[in-house]
Amino acid sequence: MPILRIDLGSPTPVYRQIVDSLRALLVGGAFAPGQRLPTVREVAIDLGVNHNTVAEAYRLLAEEGWLELKRHQGATVIRRPAQRAQPARQADFVQRLRELAARAIADGVDKEAVAKQLSTLAANLKHLRRETQ
Amino acid sequence: MPILRIDLGSPTPVYRQIVDSLRALLVGGAFAPGQRLPTVREVAIDLGVNHNTVAEAYRLLAEEGWLELKRHQGATVIRRPAQRAQPARQADFVQRLRELAARAIADGVDKEAVAKQLSTLAANLKHLRRETQ
Repeated sequence: MPILRIDLGSPTPVYRQIVDSLRALLVGGAFAPGQRLPTVREVAIDLGVNHNTVAEAYRLLAEEGWLELKRHQGATVIRRPAQRAQPARQADFVQRLRELAARAIADGVDKEAVAKQLSTLAANLKHLRRETQ
Repeated sequence: MPILRIDLGSPTPVYRQIVDSLRALLVGGAFAPGQRLPTVREVAIDLGVNHNTVAEAYRLLAEEGWLELKRHQGATVIRRPAQRAQPARQADFVQRLRELAARAIADGVDKEAVAKQLSTLAANLKHLRRETQ
C-alpha cells in the first residue's frame, strides 16, 4: 500500500484525511480494480488511529463507488463508472485551487515553487489513464 | 470590491469561505496597501449573512497581518511582511493540491480541464508582483 499521509494536528478530521488521501491514490491509478486493500485493522494500526476512523473512511469511499466492502474479506477496489460533473463543479474547483495556492503563498511558500507544483501536476494528469477517471 | 464567492450549502463555514476568498484576492494584489475595504455591514448585507460572520472573517485576516481594523473606520489593507514558510508547508500544499485535483476528477470534471486550470494558474502566478507575497 502506498503511504497515506495524515496529520493528527490538522483541523481536518482524520477519517476525511484518509478519504482524501486514498481517493487521490485511486484517481492516480495506484490500485488496479480487483485489488484488495489492507484491512481496516491493518491501516488503523499503521496510522495509530482508531479502528472506527478507518472503517468510516472505507465506508465513504465505498459510497463514492471506489470500493466494495465485504464482511471478513475487507475492501476490494472496483471499477468505478465515469461520473458526469455538475456544471458548477469546475468553477468550484477553480475557486478552491486559487484559494489553496493563495494560502500557501501567504504562508511563505515561494510563488515559483507553487507555480512549479501546479505545472508538474498538470503534466502528470496528461499521463493519467482514462479508466482511472 | 471584487466579487466574493460564497456557498451557503458548503460544509465549510461561511466565515472561513470569506477568509479564503478574500485572502486569495489579497495575495493576487486586488487591493493596494492603504485601501479601505467595504465595511462589515456592507459585506454582510451584500452576501446575505450575519454581521458577526463577516466581522470574524475580518478579525482573522487582521490576525494574519492583511488588515488593520479600526473601530468606526472599518478595515484597511496593510502591507504584510513576507513570511518564511515552515519546511513542511510546501509538502502539505502539494498533498492538498493532489487531493483537490483528484476530487474534481472523481466528481467528473474532465482531467484535461483540470490540467488546463493548473497551467493557467501557474502562468498567472508568474505575473504576480513580489510585494503581494
